[in-house]
Amino acid sequence: MTASQAKTIKKIALLTSGGDAPGMNAAIRSTTLYALHHGIEVIGFRHGYNGLINNEFIRLDEPSVREIVGRGGTILKSARCEEFKTCEGMKQAAKNLSAQNIDALIVIGGDGSFAGLVKFKQFYSGQTIGIPGTIDNDIDGTDHTIGFATAVDTAVNAIDKIRDTADAFERIFVVEVMGRKSGFLALNVGVACAAEHIITFENFSNPGIELQHIATKVERIKKHRGKCSHLIVSAENLYPGGANKLASDLADYAAIECIPCILGYIQRGGDPVAKDRILATHMGAHAIQELLAGNSDIMIGIEGQFCKPIALSESVEHHKGVNQNLLDIQESLQDLR
Amino acid sequence: MTASQAKTIKKIALLTSGGDAPGMNAAIRSTTLYALHHGIEVIGFRHGYNGLINNEFIRLDEPSVREIVGRGGTILKSARCEEFKTCEGMKQAAKNLSAQNIDALIVIGGDGSFAGLVKFKQFYSGQTIGIPGTIDNDIDGTDHTIGFATAVDTAVNAIDKIRDTADAFERIFVVEVMGRKSGFLALNVGVACAAEHIITFENFSNPGIELQHIATKVERIKKHRGKCSHLIVSAENLYPGGANKLASDLADYAAIECIPCILGYIQRGGDPVAKDRILATHMGAHAIQELLAGNSDIMIGIEGQFCKPIALSESVEHHKGVNQNLLDIQESLQDLR
Amino acid sequence: MTASQAKTIKKIALLTSGGDAPGMNAAIRSTTLYALHHGIEVIGFRHGYNGLINNEFIRLDEPSVREIVGRGGTILKSARCEEFKTCEGMKQAAKNLSAQNIDALIVIGGDGSFAGLVKFKQFYSGQTIGIPGTIDNDIDGTDHTIGFATAVDTAVNAIDKIRDTADAFERIFVVEVMGRKSGFLALNVGVACAAEHIITFENFSNPGIELQHIATKVERIKKHRGKCSHLIVSAENLYPGGANKLASDLADYAAIECIPCILGYIQRGGDPVAKDRILATHMGAHAIQELLAGNSDIMIGIEGQFCKPIALSESVEHHKGVNQNLLDIQESLQDLR
Amino acid sequence: MTASQAKTIKKIALLTSGGDAPGMNAAIRSTTLYALHHGIEVIGFRHGYNGLINNEFIRLDEPSVREIVGRGGTILKSARCEEFKTCEGMKQAAKNLSAQNIDALIVIGGDGSFAGLVKFKQFYSGQTIGIPGTIDNDIDGTDHTIGFATAVDTAVNAIDKIRDTADAFERIFVVEVMGRKSGFLALNVGVACAAEHIITFENFSNPGIELQHIATKVERIKKHRGKCSHLIVSAENLYPGGANKLASDLADYAAIECIPCILGYIQRGGDPVAKDRILATHMGAHAIQELLAGNSDIMIGIEGQFCKPIALSESVEHHKGVNQNLLDIQESLQDLR
Repeated sequence: MTASQAKTIKKIALLTSGGDAPGMNAAIRSTTLYALHHGIEVIGFRHGYNGLINNEFIRLDEPSVREIVGRGGTILKSARCEEFKTCEGMKQAAKNLSAQNIDALIVIGGDGSFAGLVKFKQFYSGQTIGIPGTIDNDIDGTDHTIGFATAVDTAVNAIDKIRDTADAFERIFVVEVMGRKSGFLALNVGVACAAEHIITFENFSNPGIELQHIATKVERIKKHRGKCSHLIVSAENLYPGGANKLASDLADYAAIECIPCILGYIQRGGDPVAKDRILATHMGAHAIQELLAGNSDIMIGIEGQFCKPIALSESVEHHKGVNQNLLDIQESLQDLR
Repeated sequence: MTASQAKTIKKIALLTSGGDAPGMNAAIRSTTLYALHHGIEVIGFRHGYNGLINNEFIRLDEPSVREIVGRGGTILKSARCEEFKTCEGMKQAAKNLSAQNIDALIVIGGDGSFAGLVKFKQFYSGQTIGIPGTIDNDIDGTDHTIGFATAVDTAVNAIDKIRDTADAFERIFVVEVMGRKSGFLALNVGVACAAEHIITFENFSNPGIELQHIATKVERIKKHRGKCSHLIVSAENLYPGGANKLASDLADYAAIECIPCILGYIQRGGDPVAKDRILATHMGAHAIQELLAGNSDIMIGIEGQFCKPIALSESVEHHKGVNQNLLDIQESLQDLR
Repeated sequence: MTASQAKTIKKIALLTSGGDAPGMNAAIRSTTLYALHHGIEVIGFRHGYNGLINNEFIRLDEPSVREIVGRGGTILKSARCEEFKTCEGMKQAAKNLSAQNIDALIVIGGDGSFAGLVKFKQFYSGQTIGIPGTIDNDIDGTDHTIGFATAVDTAVNAIDKIRDTADAFERIFVVEVMGRKSGFLALNVGVACAAEHIITFENFSNPGIELQHIATKVERIKKHRGKCSHLIVSAENLYPGGANKLASDLADYAAIECIPCILGYIQRGGDPVAKDRILATHMGAHAIQELLAGNSDIMIGIEGQFCKPIALSESVEHHKGVNQNLLDIQESLQDLR
Repeated sequence: MTASQAKTIKKIALLTSGGDAPGMNAAIRSTTLYALHHGIEVIGFRHGYNGLINNEFIRLDEPSVREIVGRGGTILKSARCEEFKTCEGMKQAAKNLSAQNIDALIVIGGDGSFAGLVKFKQFYSGQTIGIPGTIDNDIDGTDHTIGFATAVDTAVNAIDKIRDTADAFERIFVVEVMGRKSGFLALNVGVACAAEHIITFENFSNPGIELQHIATKVERIKKHRGKCSHLIVSAENLYPGGANKLASDLADYAAIECIPCILGYIQRGGDPVAKDRILATHMGAHAIQELLAGNSDIMIGIEGQFCKPIALSESVEHHKGVNQNLLDIQESLQDLR
């Protein structure tokens, strides 16, 4: 992160990379318009880093971003890109940027995309900025990532429907939500759905203990409330074999019958909720403000009401964990005297 | 179906049975209030036919149905009931109804529930009426069943989100929707989502032909449109092994990479859309009108704007198929010159 | 309506006219793709009949309609057009169509647009077809118009929120919905929201009687249920002065305090629900089928599951009224013994 | 705010007061269950402070709060209460609390309710805690109030629909949102809807200047983009005469035709979004934690991820303003070179 100084910038490039997240389009729009407001030309590379390597891009002007603030997906398309992990790929990408005199590159994506961007600085001398767009919220240095709020609401709306059926039949459901290697989605979704149990990285030790824990809890709650619906919300990539295996293990271990549901890809797309649109608009404009201040190698984070820069290299260290206090509260709400 | 004649009815019973469907509560409400309007007392048995056998019931009055017109699930709970398939179970159920002088039994449910109700007439001399509540729309004698419209919208909203990701990555997704043994959900959802391909009972012959058909279509559309998202919507219980197997078979057969998604239980619950609330309100009141006219052994169907009775025994014959014309249109829309 | 015969059609034009309705885009898409499937070229005039007069149009191909099946509004824009009511305007429009050798003109709109199209046949010798797109459902010869189902759901979702506040404060709200000169929206919305009272063209006589009726009903329901929320759903253009005047008149007449709400323009837009997407897809393709069969001067209606033609001139006679039976049922549900 | 010390609490009372806000039920649930977890008995007074004076209450146990986490409104009902502003009213309320040995009173509401609670301490010696529940977000000492996030999303969803019609007709709409005396709703809604102009307390000086500002902006944007939709989002209680007067003044002042829309009561109710459910759950439990720590005369605020107490008397001072940076950004996005 270089020291702040006023900077003349004429042309920048944008791209979206990695898993799509609701609000990426709002970030594209805001970054573009705020740059145009400052007389900066903007181009967008398509298909993530692939477009950078293959020199596939479009010019971004006002009409091209006019109706996208509330639309899911990304008009620039996204992709994962193996070639960008190679020196050849990065060199070609840098060459393409230089050929067009691109002063700065802004990448909207998650930790993998940022890690790539950090390495890319070996080959590219322009400014680089990351905007955190991922439903997983697993980026350090920001309270929230773009897409997280929408994904939580999507999962909650889906599980509310499952709760109806669980209530009608007074049955146990185990619902697996996304989150990659972090429990933000599972915790927030679980609390919002009044889940009877949440399995997240912070409270999971091993399958045997988990089964025992669930069995005890099912028994206790049943004793207290009588037969009723019981929802278990689980982070993915945690219980070996996922929700399906957990369900069959519960049957074997404690003759507990439960229905597994994997929410899957519905959590990635969808029109962004207001919060993600606002966050993306804020971050996109702030990215340009940082560029104009001469800063580079940073990610735009949000803390409370304010955007702030953090070194890109620090954003991918995975030190951020879920709110343990909230997890404890949720546990207490299921344990009545 | 006895000839119509005015009938004095003092007390009726309601229950919901089989898979829950959005709008069941609206039907409970309407049936109850319309009966109360005519001075008829109403009780509701809980947990489907189980409650009838175990004599588990609640009195239904205005406050008990006041806030439920727009709520998913069923306040009477639902269940499947093996015991009701036995003579002993049915005898006990009939005994419980007689003990309370129940003049008529109204069952809100699907074909399994109606088949049970038909047999139950061997043991019960009161009037019986079925109200079709199932998301599958697989009941003869009615344009629509309660819950179908909501389930279509739920699936469409979910797949719209998947389309965002499919668009961002220009990939192929195969999405499996419910429907049991019928293709109403798959066809309607597929058309509404502009699916590139719909697999339903009416157009499926065998896995080999299906794979060939999909491969040809993927190739043709790609040639015409370039790389783009491609959605396949499939009815459940059709391709052997479901969406997951179809995806792996496509990889083997034609090196087509596609991502399988099973929407699952989110399609059953949820607050009913307006159409299901209106349909349920209409059918519930009409059921009482039929009772008062002395009719029995019927199901309430809707045809255009009007409710009409159909013999219960005919409602479960599964003659109703999807609109072939609509399926042909959808196919044509994907086949451009 | 000419007798059916196979017809060679090379080029057609589309436009959307009058109030926008959710699903118009799905109709544009379906009409376009089905035409392309039959090798017919398609252009779309912009801004309704204005575009026809000013010769403002775009070519419609697959990419231009690719992502619009689920989007509100209309990509062709809409407008009302005074100039098209003049001979000069119509002559110019016909001249523009002839200059491009347009074989047929398809208009997606409501009764005003169709009345214009009927007159336009004095000047234009090509085929003409109307597709009913209006949230008001006030077109004869079709069970439903495109946009109606979405508008009902939008209004119901809005009123569900108002009900929460009405319940929390146990107060009376009067909500005015759209519908122009018909009560379809008011009736369907009122039933779906379990409105305590619905004011529609079929049951309204004059303000004095209405006030008396409401006052009696409020009193009766309060006596029966105790203090509780009470929703009155009213069609627009009915009570003189609308919801605001009704509220103040109720205060004067019977010291009944109620809060007026006018839902307004939120009812017109929004992404179409599945039903409107399917209806629009069906009607759009059917319009091309009718053109190919040599038919003209017709509107595409839906009856049950099937599309069918009706003379355009008959579609605007306003003979269609709401389902009186459903209105009676709703009234009975509020009148318990 | 007394110094923290462990406290034995046996029985507490809850009430909801003032305008209802989505998430109030989630707060009732969390407060109740967390209290029960600690062996504390809970009662809920109905109809705000009225219930306190009239001694109208219900016992809150697990079944009474089981299904409410996601429901709008408040099961305890709400009301404004003139009598509670009098000494007699407060004395009676205190008497009722003492008669039942209520150790603490928790009030979920807004600034008016909190001001009442502060005064009530003259008469009541138990602990008092406020939980901020209002869609207006106009409470000091907390980043967000319960209900704000939902109200923003509700307004944004409504305005997205209006945008469709504005786009179809390329017209100007002015939409008035709630917010009482603060601009949080207007700013957040305006940014999320990509409003061309936002009128809020922070940027409004007087009607004449506002008209001039709007006229200039409409002209500038039209010059830049051509004819297109143009949305003005305005806070209520700001422009004299509201949206209707602003529209007619714009016509008089600059011959600008715009359509006024007042969103009104749909912004208050509705099922809470995930964020409000989580916030309410967090705050409700934290209120009990503060009681157990011996604290009183405080409001529970949220700052980042953590709940924290603030003196009740400070919570109603209205020092909190909207994020000026975000307002500036939004302005810049509409002003392109």
